Amino acid sequence: MEDLRNIRLPKLPEKAGLSVVLFEKQSLGGVCLNEGCIPTKTLLYSAKTYDGARHATKYAVNVPEVSFDLPKIIAHKQKVVRKLVLGVKGKLTAHGVVIVTGEATVIDKNHIQCADETYECENLLLCTGSETFVPPIQGVDTVPYWTHRAALDNKELPASLAIIGGGVIGMEFASFFNSLGVEVTVIEMLDEILGGMDKELSAMLRAEYAKRGIKFMLSTKVVSVMLSEVEASPLKNIRGEEILRQAQDDSSVKQSSMQVNYENADGAGSVVAEKLLMSVGRRPVLKGFGLENLDLEKTECGNIRVDEQMQTSVPGAYACGDLTGFSLLAHTAVREAEVAVHTIIGKQDAMSYRAIPGVVYTNPEIAGVGETGESLQKKGIAYRAVKLPMAYSSRFVAENEGVNGVCKLLLAEDNIILGAHVLGNPASEIITLAGMAIELGLTTEEWKRIVFPHPTVGEIFKEAL
Amino acid sequence: MEDLRNIRLPKLPEKAGLSVVLFEKQSLGGVCLNEGCIPTKTLLYSAKTYDGARHATKYAVNVPEVSFDLPKIIAHKQKVVRKLVLGVKGKLTAHGVVIVTGEATVIDKNHIQCADETYECENLLLCTGSETFVPPIQGVDTVPYWTHRAALDNKELPASLAIIGGGVIGMEFASFFNSLGVEVTVIEMLDEILGGMDKELSAMLRAEYAKRGIKFMLSTKVVSVMLSEVEASPLKNIRGEEILRQAQDDSSVKQSSMQVNYENADGAGSVVAEKLLMSVGRRPVLKGFGLENLDLEKTECGNIRVDEQMQTSVPGAYACGDLTGFSLLAHTAVREAEVAVHTIIGKQDAMSYRAIPGVVYTNPEIAGVGETGESLQKKGIAYRAVKLPMAYSSRFVAENEGVNGVCKLLLAEDNIILGAHVLGNPASEIITLAGMAIELGLTTEEWKRIVFPHPTVGEIFKEAL
Repeated sequence: MEDLRNIRLPKLPEKAGLSVVLFEKQSLGGVCLNEGCIPTKTLLYSAKTYDGARHATKYAVNVPEVSFDLPKIIAHKQKVVRKLVLGVKGKLTAHGVVIVTGEATVIDKNHIQCADETYECENLLLCTGSETFVPPIQGVDTVPYWTHRAALDNKELPASLAIIGGGVIGMEFASFFNSLGVEVTVIEMLDEILGGMDKELSAMLRAEYAKRGIKFMLSTKVVSVMLSEVEASPLKNIRGEEILRQAQDDSSVKQSSMQVNYENADGAGSVVAEKLLMSVGRRPVLKGFGLENLDLEKTECGNIRVDEQMQTSVPGAYACGDLTGFSLLAHTAVREAEVAVHTIIGKQDAMSYRAIPGVVYTNPEIAGVGETGESLQKKGIAYRAVKLPMAYSSRFVAENEGVNGVCKLLLAEDNIILGAHVLGNPASEIITLAGMAIELGLTTEEWKRIVFPHPTVGEIFKEAL
Repeated sequence: MEDLRNIRLPKLPEKAGLSVVLFEKQSLGGVCLNEGCIPTKTLLYSAKTYDGARHATKYAVNVPEVSFDLPKIIAHKQKVVRKLVLGVKGKLTAHGVVIVTGEATVIDKNHIQCADETYECENLLLCTGSETFVPPIQGVDTVPYWTHRAALDNKELPASLAIIGGGVIGMEFASFFNSLGVEVTVIEMLDEILGGMDKELSAMLRAEYAKRGIKFMLSTKVVSVMLSEVEASPLKNIRGEEILRQAQDDSSVKQSSMQVNYENADGAGSVVAEKLLMSVGRRPVLKGFGLENLDLEKTECGNIRVDEQMQTSVPGAYACGDLTGFSLLAHTAVREAEVAVHTIIGKQDAMSYRAIPGVVYTNPEIAGVGETGESLQKKGIAYRAVKLPMAYSSRFVAENEGVNGVCKLLLAEDNIILGAHVLGNPASEIITLAGMAIELGLTTEEWKRIVFPHPTVGEIFKEAL
């Protein structure tokens, strides 16, 4: 028999043959790879490993003693980031992309300047990303607060941490520091953490972390921050275990702590913590880089207006990623960029925001895709919610002793899948199944005909259908 | 605004209104739940937890000492199984299914006898399952070997274990006992373990376990088994750690071990081990239960012939699950049963075997769905294989320090996905994504337009496309 393995079919047009120049003033991979998704997930995996060892007895494994080494956790994170940045660089170089390191300035749609060079281009892809938004809270300029960047590189564990903003970034750090024993307080202006995610599941996750010792203050407005001269915290963690410091101060000496003054329905009050993390949110970078030279049309919110092909009001100039303000997520940016590039090379494509998954890598994870009950109510679309405990997945039962979770599906009148929300590991990995079902417009019956391997956690969808 | 949450759409026809009697002579849930998928996965999760603690230092978590408690691991398994069996029973009872405990005999298509009662039915669903196949090896009746059932309940760790048959069951037990430190030898008649899975990935998994101390003998035929009076094994595990026994014999006393005599290209030889596990395979239960009274048409292989609606040659009599011999997997059985029930209630449906996932819960897991290179070559279908290291998924890199893996996609000339194979955790959960793509007949381009959340291991498919 002829060996068919050697019959090479034509390769897909992975490389469209365009000549590409990429300008980056900092590190390849942007926020996600250097100071976002990847470093946080690496830290969180160390925390998960630590939690796993601490609770190993649930699975009849005895771990009499377990500790962690924060500087080594940070070093491992750096190693992972370094490896992946090199991977990105290698891939770009292998595909012949010219990488220019430096801050570029758009002169006009066809000319980019960087250092003393001017580059000419036919098409322009704007991906300036987003930056941390620090709200103009009184006193914020006078205190040494952390943003996610400092929190990622902090090698000395604080005894306590106040987090302003209970969104995804705030909750992932809350989870990390809570696992490591830090006393964490989350202050959130809205009435629930994780705005945008399913509200009921977010509340369940909050209840779980409250049990583990995180203090939540919802519907609470921060009015000012200041330094507070208080007695040194006892350097014990929330489980009463002593925290060892590299450079142990004389414990009788007064230490400088942060005081966060707030107002809520109960009146005014304050939270005192050793460190303060600002995680109110991020906003698109719409200034600088000569963007003003393009005179781009804006939306009502002030973002750059793009069409379904990600093209701005200037033909040949495209905008992708956080910059567009649609969804500050790396995977949205990747898909937007694919659409833009397809358009440039004359391949028909259009951006769809129907099934953009959102994941929070707490432990347990929470993930959602498509509509939420709240968004459907706002749009006035009738729907039916099916809610199932994760215990309907036998694998979940086998691997999550004493842990609960929920899967929620939102179904249209004609049984088309509108939204899916999961609280329970590995929500991050299985949510893509629902993303496929939603993007492809499957009905419950069509989705149910798929054979899900048994036993898997993903089967929970099949059970819910 | 009207509260749309309270608008209840009509419920899906989950219950078709049929009156159902279920006959079961042993435990509800069958082999899968009582002595197959679920108990093995529970044991394997304890092993994974143990491995996780042993290697925690890779993620900067220090676990100076770790041990396991086998009787407690078994007890946890029992607890999980009990909980799930009760769940199945509760669900059946809630839906009004009459459960009859006892061995049923089919009198004719419309009459079933159990104990002294005769039951009348319009439709009959045969699900007699499969049983362990023990090959007629010389001496097999004279030695106390294990099947998977004994291995699941064994509370005293042997120092060494010989496994005859390197298929899914053999490899899952090999993985479990290897993790716990037992010296494992796998003897396989074919030239690779895990027949039916992607051969290249199976070889990689084998190489990984060989590094961890499992001895593999491929293309090796077992000719006889016998007891062997040898010196007591030193009761040390493969890592040289002492194995503690509940009832410690005097170590100078001779112990009875098993001797497996084999033949392969190198000649004849033997393996001596404390215990012997038989995991050559399973075969459909085609006898008993009065099946002969139905005079069912058979296939060339001797299995019951069914059509696409799972109907046998006797109208109104359906056969589902291992009994049909198509695929001895619980999830296939579930889908087959859905098809049969849909047919009974007059809903159009047909069984498709195009995308039945197969998963081996070793650590790392290996999973595949659709065609393999081998099956395509046999059918003479031209294809293109895309192979990508799992390191192309940044989450895999963050959570799998020092571990490799591979994702392989098999694509048709018109870029339709034909098969997908993954070595690396959590292959079991992400393989369903490929299952959906294959069952729905997606092309690479269609699949690539799905937004995969970042960072996830599942993104490896998007990278490979």
